[in-house]
Amino acid sequence: MIRSIEWRSGTVRFLDQTLLPSREEYVETADIEVLAEAVERLKVRGAPLLGITAAYGVLLGVRSLREAPLEGFLEAFTLSVDRLSRTRPTARNLFGALERMRGVVRLNPRCGSGALYTLLEQEALAVHDEDRRLCDSIGFYGAQLIEEGARILTHCNTGALATGGIGTALGAVVTAHAAGKRPFVYADETRPLFQGARLTMWELRKAGIPAALITDGSAAWAMLRKGIDLVIVGADRIAMNGDTANKIGTYQLAIAARAHGIPFYVAAPRTTIDETLPDGSGIPIEERTAVDLLGGFAAPIAPDGAEVFAPAFDVTPGALITAVITERGIHRQPYERSLREALAP
Amino acid sequence: MIRSIEWRSGTVRFLDQTLLPSREEYVETADIEVLAEAVERLKVRGAPLLGITAAYGVLLGVRSLREAPLEGFLEAFTLSVDRLSRTRPTARNLFGALERMRGVVRLNPRCGSGALYTLLEQEALAVHDEDRRLCDSIGFYGAQLIEEGARILTHCNTGALATGGIGTALGAVVTAHAAGKRPFVYADETRPLFQGARLTMWELRKAGIPAALITDGSAAWAMLRKGIDLVIVGADRIAMNGDTANKIGTYQLAIAARAHGIPFYVAAPRTTIDETLPDGSGIPIEERTAVDLLGGFAAPIAPDGAEVFAPAFDVTPGALITAVITERGIHRQPYERSLREALAP
Repeated sequence: MIRSIEWRSGTVRFLDQTLLPSREEYVETADIEVLAEAVERLKVRGAPLLGITAAYGVLLGVRSLREAPLEGFLEAFTLSVDRLSRTRPTARNLFGALERMRGVVRLNPRCGSGALYTLLEQEALAVHDEDRRLCDSIGFYGAQLIEEGARILTHCNTGALATGGIGTALGAVVTAHAAGKRPFVYADETRPLFQGARLTMWELRKAGIPAALITDGSAAWAMLRKGIDLVIVGADRIAMNGDTANKIGTYQLAIAARAHGIPFYVAAPRTTIDETLPDGSGIPIEERTAVDLLGGFAAPIAPDGAEVFAPAFDVTPGALITAVITERGIHRQPYERSLREALAP
Repeated sequence: MIRSIEWRSGTVRFLDQTLLPSREEYVETADIEVLAEAVERLKVRGAPLLGITAAYGVLLGVRSLREAPLEGFLEAFTLSVDRLSRTRPTARNLFGALERMRGVVRLNPRCGSGALYTLLEQEALAVHDEDRRLCDSIGFYGAQLIEEGARILTHCNTGALATGGIGTALGAVVTAHAAGKRPFVYADETRPLFQGARLTMWELRKAGIPAALITDGSAAWAMLRKGIDLVIVGADRIAMNGDTANKIGTYQLAIAARAHGIPFYVAAPRTTIDETLPDGSGIPIEERTAVDLLGGFAAPIAPDGAEVFAPAFDVTPGALITAVITERGIHRQPYERSLREALAP
């Protein structure tokens, strides 16, 4: 079991993901600045994991003041939240977790520093624990869609390295494996940042799940020649009609799956569903620079100053998605209804 | 105009393609061994270019004996052909060109060394010149399919660096550009070996054609968001029903083009059409090793010993191909008839 982050009653221990797959090194720190920089330098990444990290970061920021007067404690609290907010300005889960921590302070105006610290620690642990449980739940439902001996194609990294638990899409595979279903995974390398090659292949090896790495352009050919049974991916944002923003390459994969009559599943926590969006047309797509495409090689792979088109995400139409899996279950078409049910309290 | 290879009446001058896109360096040699090693080390690559290179290589191997007795000349000829045959054992064009050189010797049994050398030199220049002219012709027909201001998506490298002329699929783009049609190219980087990033982007810059590099997984999204007008690719082998073996990733691209209603063209010389193959099921697909996928990076991108599935090519069904362009014209469905016409003497 990979523990990408752990709270150790005063310190945070996290896996430095920038060293993967070469080295598995953990950092243990009591310093919020070390943790904030780890987030900025992508040593810790993955949407759900960033939420948990931010919650623990707040604890590090206030811990030394838990016996100080409340005023100082609250000042450190505000500084900590501000510092963590500046690490990854577009990370929704990070802001969600910080908002939960703020809520604890707001709802307990008459607590002293020590009691407030205890409540904040409980909240941070709850953020982590809830994520762990929702991963288990997504894994449980996702595994129901995986037959004995299934050949599964996945994209990017959606496992323990991205969450506080077993993962989302990859969590379904891990759960199926634990149930003795002997899945075999084809992992898209996921250009430009190679999360599939670097992280997913590493996780699968740790979990003892057999897997083969493919280039992103080989997926359709693998479907045809290797008899892929299903595709399962994660999500960054899901609109109410099922349109799903996810790592660039997902849309092309969904088209290829449809062309081969292969089911295409999206696995993500309910918080990924955005009820303000009727469809995916309103989802802004971040564009990255040439550095993402061209960095990291032993020799240049393109002429100096080559122009690139490098969207970080794409949007897959709900019509190409066989089912969305959340911690509440398996949601099918029409998504307007099934996703609304998933969101019900 | 890029000259990937030139015969200079006694020496061969070629562009060392392994140094691209960082450095444009030419090697001039009178030594067949230097040229053979250049082929082995992929300094010279691209199917049509390998045929031309082999023909010139034979000249280098016999040139010093053109005033020697015929016996010695023929011995050097046989040794030269053998040496060049061993460079790239699966290169069809290379063997085709060597066979043409052998034919010259066979058909002129009563020539002396000097006269035979002259005939061989004429044959080698003819191999090159024919390739140049068929590129021009493919370019001419291909450019007819390109509208003013077209946004064109392409895969791998099919330009001057792969041929003795302006190229095949890229030759059509170059011809359209020269005709003032102002094409804009989206170039698939073409994992694993990045021929699109390294070679096509370099060629396009040399030709002054605006272009943007994309990852292979971004193609479908580019079709949707950038309004791609057509896809044009090369071919390694075309069966009589239009099924086309080409660089891995081509099949996925053809599926995405069909899903967006975008024409998908294959441009290649007639010699690529294999009349012994009724369809693509009989085309053997070479599988590469993990080295292709994982080599060349500043740091490892996958765990040590990661299993890979790394086909070098895939086969795109003729049904997904809008037209095949050869030096004879534009061939459409049904391919059984149109490709047979293309093959007519």
